Amino acid sequence: MKRIYFDHAATTPLDPRVLETMMPYLTEQFGNPSSILIEEGGIPHRAVGEARAHVAALIGASPDEIVFTASATESNNLAVKGLALANRQKGNRILFSDIEHYSITNQADFLTGMGFEIDYIRVDTNGLINLDDLRKKASEGTILACIMYANLEIGTIQPLKEAALILKERGIILHSDGAGACGTIPVYVNDLGIDTMTLSSHQFYGPKGIAALYIRKGVRLKPIIQGGYQEMGYRPGTENVPAIVGFGETSRLAMEEMGTRLEHLKTLSGRLWTGIDASIDFLHFTGHPTQRLPGHVSFWIEFVEGESLLMWLNLNGIASSSGSACASNLMAIDETGLKASHVLTAIGVPPEICHGSIAFSLGKNSTMEEVELVLSILPGIVTKLREMSPLYSKFKETQKGGM
Amino acid sequence: MKRIYFDHAATTPLDPRVLETMMPYLTEQFGNPSSILIEEGGIPHRAVGEARAHVAALIGASPDEIVFTASATESNNLAVKGLALANRQKGNRILFSDIEHYSITNQADFLTGMGFEIDYIRVDTNGLINLDDLRKKASEGTILACIMYANLEIGTIQPLKEAALILKERGIILHSDGAGACGTIPVYVNDLGIDTMTLSSHQFYGPKGIAALYIRKGVRLKPIIQGGYQEMGYRPGTENVPAIVGFGETSRLAMEEMGTRLEHLKTLSGRLWTGIDASIDFLHFTGHPTQRLPGHVSFWIEFVEGESLLMWLNLNGIASSSGSACASNLMAIDETGLKASHVLTAIGVPPEICHGSIAFSLGKNSTMEEVELVLSILPGIVTKLREMSPLYSKFKETQKGGM
Repeated sequence: MKRIYFDHAATTPLDPRVLETMMPYLTEQFGNPSSILIEEGGIPHRAVGEARAHVAALIGASPDEIVFTASATESNNLAVKGLALANRQKGNRILFSDIEHYSITNQADFLTGMGFEIDYIRVDTNGLINLDDLRKKASEGTILACIMYANLEIGTIQPLKEAALILKERGIILHSDGAGACGTIPVYVNDLGIDTMTLSSHQFYGPKGIAALYIRKGVRLKPIIQGGYQEMGYRPGTENVPAIVGFGETSRLAMEEMGTRLEHLKTLSGRLWTGIDASIDFLHFTGHPTQRLPGHVSFWIEFVEGESLLMWLNLNGIASSSGSACASNLMAIDETGLKASHVLTAIGVPPEICHGSIAFSLGKNSTMEEVELVLSILPGIVTKLREMSPLYSKFKETQKGGM
Repeated sequence: MKRIYFDHAATTPLDPRVLETMMPYLTEQFGNPSSILIEEGGIPHRAVGEARAHVAALIGASPDEIVFTASATESNNLAVKGLALANRQKGNRILFSDIEHYSITNQADFLTGMGFEIDYIRVDTNGLINLDDLRKKASEGTILACIMYANLEIGTIQPLKEAALILKERGIILHSDGAGACGTIPVYVNDLGIDTMTLSSHQFYGPKGIAALYIRKGVRLKPIIQGGYQEMGYRPGTENVPAIVGFGETSRLAMEEMGTRLEHLKTLSGRLWTGIDASIDFLHFTGHPTQRLPGHVSFWIEFVEGESLLMWLNLNGIASSSGSACASNLMAIDETGLKASHVLTAIGVPPEICHGSIAFSLGKNSTMEEVELVLSILPGIVTKLREMSPLYSKFKETQKGGM
């Protein structure tokens, strides 16, 4: 059975064209790019430079504003810890939006242990940050705010530009986790006015194990890893040349094809959205209805356990996600086997069904046929699961009694 | 012209057999191993587990003692900072051997900024750590010592087991950077008695962008990067599955073929050593004559500028190294264009010729033919460079005057 992969939020397949550009560096061109005095280092050295230029171009930055790291998680750690440590003479307050990824929120303990204070910016029921709350919290002594661009769990895209203006006039640095946005929707760092931004290669058809941090010229940041002099000292370690080259190529392709991809994704997810809306009752879409990632449809269904739905979809050949892939192991080891998502709690989903949400995230190779197939399968699974739900039978009895 | 690659200390070519095992994970098996509830996550999840078992087996550890990172540099940072932060209630003194890699030594500022004190263990002229100095410096309040296993610049292998005994009876944790040793020479963590050890995939025919840290059961260590729950929380971030699988396979192959590889390397470097010794005067080998990495021959030559020699060798089709590849960029930007290596300074090489050393590091695919070719080319280059050296002509005049 051919699988339907609607879980591009977790990771995307590597584009075969990207793999092709990586192959020379997985074979003959294996040299260390730091070995600049020997021939073996030359071609890899230049390839890293070209890739950096492609990644920079994708977000309208200069190549020397791009630092390669091994993951979006590392980029978010380099940004938050690096900015905090380099700017601590200005203050000790740091703001996180309420729906940041674990690679931001789970730094809180480390930072408070170093004398920083974390405060949180509220979001509304659509997952948009509350700009008034930001104004209130962006008080004296605040040095840094972290506001992600697009949330992969609920799809919401933040009003980053407005947030940046508020922060700029108070001299507060803005870091944005752009892992879910860069390569999928247009991102122009200068237009947005952000100071640092995380990019993740495997979120848009590039290889795993490589990511980047954009650092605006003039922004002070301390490395969290020390060693040799790679990446201008911001991130030492022998360069992962094949992955860097692949990241460059996937960035180049994303720029070139973004218009077509966006149109395609919007058509498919538009149909998926209306189809789901029409066929399933007591269903609640999550995230913002329009300011959201194209190709992303997320929701929760009353009387249906989200993880059961996910597993039944899986058995029917459909890959989707419930919460963040990064939390799956936590979920597995949690004593109840289930843990509420802080993102869903933040947008006001009742905690008892917070492990009940599903996200379909489509990709550039998804087809309308797949969308129709999902639409034909989903209602039947929902009906079956509801029949097994004691809450639903109770509810139906109430309804009967009420009639 | 076919190149002779005698710079395996900088990086090694990826074994085609290793690449073959990676290919499924660069194509169809692209899933996120943390997506354990959907089919796409299953095979990558199991593949990561198998790779972990292979890496563990290479050093006689348990799979749950292996944490994957992106580079030896990251492993060394995770070890040193992670152990220091987790054990600071016991004391604040940390020891580094005098010939550690930059990814250890360059952490000094960060650590002293956090209230730790760094002291250094001396080495003798062969690059062996002075055990008496270790005994003296391993004083009250010392929590951690860092002693690399094999030095890639001078080839010396440390008496780790003896050092471990001294440290153990004082309750001091021993971290060893095994990047140059693991996969090349036999390493058994339990026999050595070390607590944590760094392994680097690309140092023994595996992919770049992946490394590991061995953490002995019961040793307390804090993660330096926070995020999701991958790698038991020690090192979050989406797993670099293809690279992890490649690292596993290269470990499996290294175990299987180690005996043959060692014999081959010893034969070749034995011939290279004696050939060089016989044909070039005023040449000084560096590192220990016997306790050294097989396949590694390093030396400095009086009246010959090391980097000129390296460049002339390169022009003649031979790749070698001068100092560590990780320092190349620093060397390039240094105002003199040259900077003394702290490793060579530590073993007593006069500072004015510390940028003058060369290392030939052979690999499993090196041949006796290549060794003979290098032996036939090297003396001519040395003679030519000496003819250009004002110091040498001055010296020759003195010699004549003396006769």
